[in-house]
Amino acid sequence: MAPRAAAIAHVHVTPVAVPDPPLLNAAGCHEPLALRTIVEVEDGAGRVGLGEAYGDDATVAALQAAGRAIVGVDPWALAAIAAAVHDPQVHQAAACSRAAAPALNAPGATRSRARHAYAAIEMACLDLQGQQAQVPVAELLGGRRRDEVPFAAYLFYKFARHAPRDGGSAPPEADAWGEVLTPEAVVREAQAFSREHGFTTFKLKGGVFPPDDEFAAVAALRQTLGPEAPLRWDPNAAWTVETAVRMGERLREIGLEYYEDPCPGMEGMAEVRRRTGLPTATNMCVTSFDQLPDCVRLRPVDYLLTDPHFWGGLRETVRLSAFCQDFGIGVSMHSNTHLGVSLAAMVHVAAAMPHLSAACDTHYPWQRGQDLLRVPWTFRRGCLRVPEAPGLGVTLDRQALARMHAAYLVSGMHGRDDGAEMRRHVPGWDDRRPRW
Amino acid sequence: MAPRAAAIAHVHVTPVAVPDPPLLNAAGCHEPLALRTIVEVEDGAGRVGLGEAYGDDATVAALQAAGRAIVGVDPWALAAIAAAVHDPQVHQAAACSRAAAPALNAPGATRSRARHAYAAIEMACLDLQGQQAQVPVAELLGGRRRDEVPFAAYLFYKFARHAPRDGGSAPPEADAWGEVLTPEAVVREAQAFSREHGFTTFKLKGGVFPPDDEFAAVAALRQTLGPEAPLRWDPNAAWTVETAVRMGERLREIGLEYYEDPCPGMEGMAEVRRRTGLPTATNMCVTSFDQLPDCVRLRPVDYLLTDPHFWGGLRETVRLSAFCQDFGIGVSMHSNTHLGVSLAAMVHVAAAMPHLSAACDTHYPWQRGQDLLRVPWTFRRGCLRVPEAPGLGVTLDRQALARMHAAYLVSGMHGRDDGAEMRRHVPGWDDRRPRW
Repeated sequence: MAPRAAAIAHVHVTPVAVPDPPLLNAAGCHEPLALRTIVEVEDGAGRVGLGEAYGDDATVAALQAAGRAIVGVDPWALAAIAAAVHDPQVHQAAACSRAAAPALNAPGATRSRARHAYAAIEMACLDLQGQQAQVPVAELLGGRRRDEVPFAAYLFYKFARHAPRDGGSAPPEADAWGEVLTPEAVVREAQAFSREHGFTTFKLKGGVFPPDDEFAAVAALRQTLGPEAPLRWDPNAAWTVETAVRMGERLREIGLEYYEDPCPGMEGMAEVRRRTGLPTATNMCVTSFDQLPDCVRLRPVDYLLTDPHFWGGLRETVRLSAFCQDFGIGVSMHSNTHLGVSLAAMVHVAAAMPHLSAACDTHYPWQRGQDLLRVPWTFRRGCLRVPEAPGLGVTLDRQALARMHAAYLVSGMHGRDDGAEMRRHVPGWDDRRPRW
Repeated sequence: MAPRAAAIAHVHVTPVAVPDPPLLNAAGCHEPLALRTIVEVEDGAGRVGLGEAYGDDATVAALQAAGRAIVGVDPWALAAIAAAVHDPQVHQAAACSRAAAPALNAPGATRSRARHAYAAIEMACLDLQGQQAQVPVAELLGGRRRDEVPFAAYLFYKFARHAPRDGGSAPPEADAWGEVLTPEAVVREAQAFSREHGFTTFKLKGGVFPPDDEFAAVAALRQTLGPEAPLRWDPNAAWTVETAVRMGERLREIGLEYYEDPCPGMEGMAEVRRRTGLPTATNMCVTSFDQLPDCVRLRPVDYLLTDPHFWGGLRETVRLSAFCQDFGIGVSMHSNTHLGVSLAAMVHVAAAMPHLSAACDTHYPWQRGQDLLRVPWTFRRGCLRVPEAPGLGVTLDRQALARMHAAYLVSGMHGRDDGAEMRRHVPGWDDRRPRW
């Protein structure tokens, strides 16, 4: 393609840190700050496309290298951009330039961080394409199929406050959600999420307490929400197959929309599905297209949890939805801690999916307005409206971006370590999985 | 999406008839004219996107109905356009308005003609999108992955001349290719295709003569082309499984790139593949996404022959290629008699496919310059270059379009009937399949 005024002129990569509550999961506890990276892909006319990715050193380095590699390329030339971003030499150079990250040279790490980098670059390029052509990203992904995207309440066990940091400062204050460690507190959290955002689907992040203790919370949720409310439980592969089957037998009378990753691996999940008859879901044992033949053969799940950040970008995630439709697999969407650019991408992807059979996950309410958009997202009846403006339809609040970038710089953080954070709360805690 | 100046203002549907040689296949003989339909989707700024489809009454009626249904819609809103084109009420109205075509009301026919209509409408909308955004269609399909697309010589048995028409006019003149009914003539045809177009892959359309007679032609081709040349044989499901296996055993020493549809059905093809060990291909037993689970389970073929005209459009055909890559299935492309708009779509689709493992079929050389493009396509070393101009990158010759439309109007034809044409040459011929 000939050079065009619309070609990529600059790429800005800005890591940011955002306050995060002390949420618990099988890997430990969320730290006081979560890292993300904002990518801005700017064309010659000054239009800026936005992307968002993880904020660990490896992803930042991959994005910086990818950004250098695509200057001068047309933002519509996504195959050329993917080739440039996945070029091992690009990432070799990135790894060599960061003495602090020697582990980045592992081939598997190279592949996955290139995939993560591409997803954010593609996100920004699609936003830019949409602005250039004056169409929303959902249309670029094959066409908007729904005007609203349903989301689920993402319920977590949590501490009341973060642990004191090394150096002996005063303990942080409790956050507004308070401590959530009992069935009663989980129910109160669900009620608050329902009241504030209108969610009607609920998921409990498990794998934190012994399975029977968590079961009491799931049973309390069912009791409160009524027999029809879609309810999920996600122990993040913290259990053995036998534990998952035993809990599955208890769960049958409660009824779950799906049983998400109770144990690791496709074989284990397939066995749990077969022995319990419960619908299962995963974002752990099937996470890439090359696993789909085994997924079809073993049938570990009834639902695949898609995610544009790790399924190879927005387009590939829509393609995954179509695959699931062909093969009779349900589709939902996975979430990590994220900001509003990622949420915009998730909404456009979900709007374009030919097959979306369950409400999407999102951590967004846990950021409680700590976003870098001029207009943060607001849930109505648990749903988000698909933007009709060109591109992703969101605009950066540059002051918020600068503030969050400054927070990143002073944080000294290099990634996410829920285990180390958990040990600040519970000395000697270890991340064994399966734990039960 | 708000109304835009770029919205669809007019849709023109123009059936055309193009001279076609008396090519033979399992269903009979090509008629003197082949029908196609040209679709022009025009936006408010006068830009025109081009599409091409089959030219039978059902497809023309479906396209006219679809054209009415999408005026005012944004050409980027492909999901909305697909929904409008597939709306049963649209097609019910179309069928009712054509007293001549009562069979159009069958539900299966409604689905398939809507699918054919959508493919041509999507083709034209993508051409229009590309012109609006100033990018080639290959980029809109996920990105250009190759600059040239390889094609195969499509060899046919043929008569020297068409049969005299009813009414006793003088017999037509022989065409420049002459009669091709023997192994020697097939070899000469291959040599001519190689000389004129540079093809290095060759396919013989079979199912015309007894299998052992056709085998002699395949063996002569192998002898002439050398042991390395990719060679295919396509009996169009004219044989039983037992015949296909017996011929497959003879074929092993000759070696085929693939054995295309020797017999009908996924089970039969899977048995032939298993018993002969030959690579197999199909455009007959797997033709839609809902068949892919059985295709994965039964493994009837090593290659799927894609086709944007019947696999649901250009985007879906690129998606099919990605599916085949994930599942270790080879990818090639099927062709019917077509003009240069279809060929442009095939080239852009092939350019964007993540996985294209064999040269594409095309009937284009048999039209020998009878195209309605200002600049007809020219093969170099058997390949076509992917256009770099916006959209499909082809321009209509309006005089040629008018001439071909006039030819359609005087033809009185309603579709394709190779069997009736064959009976003009061979009275009493019947289309039995499997025949051998």
